[in-house]
Amino acid sequence: MADSRFFKNSGALSLEAIVLFTGATATPAGGGKADPKRTFSDIAPLESAGAEDVSFLDNVKYLGAFAASKAGACFVRPKFAARAPKGMLLLVTEEPYYCYALTARQFYPDSPVKEGIAATAIVAKSAHIGHGVRVDAGAVIGEHVRLGDHTRIGANTVIDDGVEIGNHCRIGACCTISHALLGNRIMLHRGVHIGQDGFGFAPGGKGILKVPQLGRVLIGDDVEIGSGTCIDRGAGPDTMIGDGCKIDNLVQIGHNVQIGRYVMMAAQCGIAGSTQVGDGVQLGGQVGITGHVRIGKGAKVAAQSGVIADIPDGLTYGGSPAVPVKDWHRQTVALANSIKKKHANES
Amino acid sequence: MADSRFFKNSGALSLEAIVLFTGATATPAGGGKADPKRTFSDIAPLESAGAEDVSFLDNVKYLGAFAASKAGACFVRPKFAARAPKGMLLLVTEEPYYCYALTARQFYPDSPVKEGIAATAIVAKSAHIGHGVRVDAGAVIGEHVRLGDHTRIGANTVIDDGVEIGNHCRIGACCTISHALLGNRIMLHRGVHIGQDGFGFAPGGKGILKVPQLGRVLIGDDVEIGSGTCIDRGAGPDTMIGDGCKIDNLVQIGHNVQIGRYVMMAAQCGIAGSTQVGDGVQLGGQVGITGHVRIGKGAKVAAQSGVIADIPDGLTYGGSPAVPVKDWHRQTVALANSIKKKHANES
Amino acid sequence: MADSRFFKNSGALSLEAIVLFTGATATPAGGGKADPKRTFSDIAPLESAGAEDVSFLDNVKYLGAFAASKAGACFVRPKFAARAPKGMLLLVTEEPYYCYALTARQFYPDSPVKEGIAATAIVAKSAHIGHGVRVDAGAVIGEHVRLGDHTRIGANTVIDDGVEIGNHCRIGACCTISHALLGNRIMLHRGVHIGQDGFGFAPGGKGILKVPQLGRVLIGDDVEIGSGTCIDRGAGPDTMIGDGCKIDNLVQIGHNVQIGRYVMMAAQCGIAGSTQVGDGVQLGGQVGITGHVRIGKGAKVAAQSGVIADIPDGLTYGGSPAVPVKDWHRQTVALANSIKKKHANES
Repeated sequence: MADSRFFKNSGALSLEAIVLFTGATATPAGGGKADPKRTFSDIAPLESAGAEDVSFLDNVKYLGAFAASKAGACFVRPKFAARAPKGMLLLVTEEPYYCYALTARQFYPDSPVKEGIAATAIVAKSAHIGHGVRVDAGAVIGEHVRLGDHTRIGANTVIDDGVEIGNHCRIGACCTISHALLGNRIMLHRGVHIGQDGFGFAPGGKGILKVPQLGRVLIGDDVEIGSGTCIDRGAGPDTMIGDGCKIDNLVQIGHNVQIGRYVMMAAQCGIAGSTQVGDGVQLGGQVGITGHVRIGKGAKVAAQSGVIADIPDGLTYGGSPAVPVKDWHRQTVALANSIKKKHANES
Repeated sequence: MADSRFFKNSGALSLEAIVLFTGATATPAGGGKADPKRTFSDIAPLESAGAEDVSFLDNVKYLGAFAASKAGACFVRPKFAARAPKGMLLLVTEEPYYCYALTARQFYPDSPVKEGIAATAIVAKSAHIGHGVRVDAGAVIGEHVRLGDHTRIGANTVIDDGVEIGNHCRIGACCTISHALLGNRIMLHRGVHIGQDGFGFAPGGKGILKVPQLGRVLIGDDVEIGSGTCIDRGAGPDTMIGDGCKIDNLVQIGHNVQIGRYVMMAAQCGIAGSTQVGDGVQLGGQVGITGHVRIGKGAKVAAQSGVIADIPDGLTYGGSPAVPVKDWHRQTVALANSIKKKHANES
Repeated sequence: MADSRFFKNSGALSLEAIVLFTGATATPAGGGKADPKRTFSDIAPLESAGAEDVSFLDNVKYLGAFAASKAGACFVRPKFAARAPKGMLLLVTEEPYYCYALTARQFYPDSPVKEGIAATAIVAKSAHIGHGVRVDAGAVIGEHVRLGDHTRIGANTVIDDGVEIGNHCRIGACCTISHALLGNRIMLHRGVHIGQDGFGFAPGGKGILKVPQLGRVLIGDDVEIGSGTCIDRGAGPDTMIGDGCKIDNLVQIGHNVQIGRYVMMAAQCGIAGSTQVGDGVQLGGQVGITGHVRIGKGAKVAAQSGVIADIPDGLTYGGSPAVPVKDWHRQTVALANSIKKKHANES
């Protein structure tokens, strides 16, 4: 399925292996017993999957595609199993997308980092380079930088003096990093900018004065950061990103912001200075959060919302200015009704 | 007019040539007959144009500037012709901006690509480089990359293994491209990132699992993409951009998104995963579109709108959440009236 | 306080020096007289400051932290002085943040630019390079470029033919600049893109025609521009940024936009083509402004607002579409009340 110019399939998987590493229950759609030795060669979307492919159903929008799919096997929740087409092998689980991801990672494991410093890379003599590190063409590694084992620095990326990056990190091409300490297994996509000055200016009677930005950026383990995203260093305190955070493209994180663990932010979010975001928070795309507020653990914010005050733990907010999601939906309905009434009065 | 440090004027154009390639009708404002041999030396805005310049009136906001302009000639719609100042040669057409663009392209044609591989560019031996290709300093061209004829790769741009780029493309500086197949006559401005992993994570009982992103980015012919824009590759299906699309700066396009032909998107739009955008759609700046919806052919969405459901063909939507534009305007008026009433009650 | 891997403290400051350069009045919190010879070694936030540190209180949110702070000295407004903890030396001023910034700049002055052209930088022979200029690894300097004295060009940055940059500028890594004339003491952070084509297309009966973009970008003195920000060159007129503007990350500025002096824009703002922004305007994060409008001098726009019409001098606007801020707050309240009434009717 995947284009072999870009992806390498590591070979067939047996049903018993798939069941073993996912914990799903194998049940043929028409009844009967599944053959544990049956093999599958690839994963594929419902629409294009064939008899040797494993697929998944996670979004109810694709129930029709599921019912018509020719996939050999499919991860599916118990409640949708009855909609399966004849001949499909059901892999029943409450976490179909998670199981699909596990399977996809078996077919297409990450390729190992090939050790080597490109001839056109510039690496300072004082830099500490771990085992198995790769530095691609045109990358620049500053004085006293520390790169952990098996970490890869992409082409034309610039790592400034003193930065520390842990083990098994993958830093994309054309990134810049300064004033930062990064953990292990971090993935930065291309064009990520970390550690530049925060937006700190003191307007006064004599003009606008730039405030020295004297903090750092601290990033935990297992963090992934999307292309074009900018994370400013702290003004005095540090900017902090907790373990396991997943941040999409073109996100802006201001100085002194503290992000907890396992936070997910969709593309083009912006978080202003000194705001705190609790563990497990989820932000939709283009969300804006003002400075100096606290988003409670596990809170969710709908896409494009504008948050101007604290959000308690666990609540879902929406709108601009953001309010509890139930109120937001009611506001939307009230607004829609107001024009219906008006229109009715007119006719 | 244009600064000769940056732009080269290719020489005077006669009125008969301009009429020939634009189809406009030449009519002196004060009446009489236009001399087809009269020449013009440049194009210029209404405010600064002189007797040898060609200008245009397209936006009614500039009608005053038109009436006061000293431009030698001006493309203008028939309905505004009567407002012209004495002595101006009117170039009457229903498409004044289009005719102006044709004329500007005659005065300032694209300069041809000068063949050559810079000494500090890194080009893999297995790469296939077409005729007349230019690769600028510090660019990195990976294994098995294919670059079509007369294509230019900007300085410090990184093209990963296997990427194919067609003929007459202009890829700006500091771009990154992977997992992608690009058509002909494509223009990427600087810092465009194409082909990085989509934002695919499966949250499960055991944490957040990264989902391998196994699709590509396919881009048609005559597409232009602005600085800082990010287009993620598909998760399994491909991310697709149709022929003739024009995408502005800092736009985010998620995995599996399918954009039709001749779509125009203003800056800072974001389109979430698996959404389909029909031919000829126009999106204003900062529009956000949620995942898994369908924007019908020829639909228009007002700037800053948030689209959370399908939009039928040909309709114009606005607001967040977006509704048909007439309803949006009514909502805005109803909201404005609600505070007037309240204020009246208070006094 | 600041991490010595990244920041160099230039040594202790006496109270009399601090009073001299800030103009603040030194008053021990418990009464008595301050010793002008007392020295301080650093600046620090209220929470972590110790006896040798200077801190500041500017935001009423941190009044509790102020009352509990162990800072040796603290810039504070007269009205909050009474809340100071015993033993704190108050540095009383109406501009505490401005005074803090002055002090921080004394402890951590900008390091001077170290002259030198990196071996892997490519500098055209026709380029004019001033005194004390630094060009970092992999940077590309085009034909006839002019770099003023003591200016630094970051690694892998690309400066196209004919660009002029003044004295004492600091251009970050991975920037691209073309068709632009920059003043003195300008700071571009990483990944800034200046001078690319504006988004100019003429749709017509025969398709979408690209309009040549024949203007430049002109940037005044003392301007700071954040990472990932894009400023397109003019279509015919120039795009202009006035003296002293401070622009945050990931901002989009379209062609022909004219920004006055001392304008401040928070992250992810977008300004569409040909709009004029007056002196001293302040834009919150994610603000969008449509094309061809005029934002009056000293106007302020709340974060995430969408401006679709002129704003008079000195007014504050909010909302999308943006209205005077008092009306916007009333609309928000009216909307909140509308659902309370509805809910009351239901119960």
